[in-house]
Amino acid sequence: MHGLFYFIKMNQNKPVSIQQKFSLFNDQWSPKIIAESNDQLIKLAKIEGEFVWHNHPHEDEVFFIIKGKLLLKFRDKEIELKEGELYVVPKGVDHFPVAEEECWVMLIEPKGTRHTGETDFERSVDEKDQKWI
Amino acid sequence: MHGLFYFIKMNQNKPVSIQQKFSLFNDQWSPKIIAESNDQLIKLAKIEGEFVWHNHPHEDEVFFIIKGKLLLKFRDKEIELKEGELYVVPKGVDHFPVAEEECWVMLIEPKGTRHTGETDFERSVDEKDQKWI
Repeated sequence: MHGLFYFIKMNQNKPVSIQQKFSLFNDQWSPKIIAESNDQLIKLAKIEGEFVWHNHPHEDEVFFIIKGKLLLKFRDKEIELKEGELYVVPKGVDHFPVAEEECWVMLIEPKGTRHTGETDFERSVDEKDQKWI
Repeated sequence: MHGLFYFIKMNQNKPVSIQQKFSLFNDQWSPKIIAESNDQLIKLAKIEGEFVWHNHPHEDEVFFIIKGKLLLKFRDKEIELKEGELYVVPKGVDHFPVAEEECWVMLIEPKGTRHTGETDFERSVDEKDQKWI
């Protein structure tokens, strides 16, 4: 195993502070991995503006809002999420996240989930390029 | 499917407010289910005092502290978790949760995880008796 990666994984042996982890990065639309459990990854992301219509054919995706607001557009409705609220986007359901101002979100999804599903997009970040922090 | 259960599951179609869900119950050591994603359940619990030594042979368990403090004792160490911190207890690892004052915690674990692993205990709540709220 790569030495740095191994070191970071070993750091799972300590409490993970959400606020401290959010202080470590400023790039938007680039989920960072903070924990792994039962082949699910817990990630943090800062997002602002519009993403892209996409779905994950085989994976449900949890959005939990840590700071700010997030609008999740669906083909047939819109769901507005505020701080302290979560929502599960079921597998296969098209969604389009929009944040008018920067929103801090916790994502929970299985290992191997592509950021934008099958959709290629300038903001896609392949999981292999998503880093542990 | 049982009518009430079906109704509650349908309510997953709305944002889930963590604070509002915590306002719905006061019983301690009795996890309530608030969401399901990829066969994992997200649960809320209010805990105070000592639990029991136990482990989950096949499931990792995420503890995310929403309010208060939680001490996780292990055979070889102790981990203190504060509000906004999370920790993943790996499968098969004995742990003993203690909260000096009432602590509100979010748990994430697979469906079918027994509350106290293989250990029978007066505070065990079988998953079939864990309710959606």
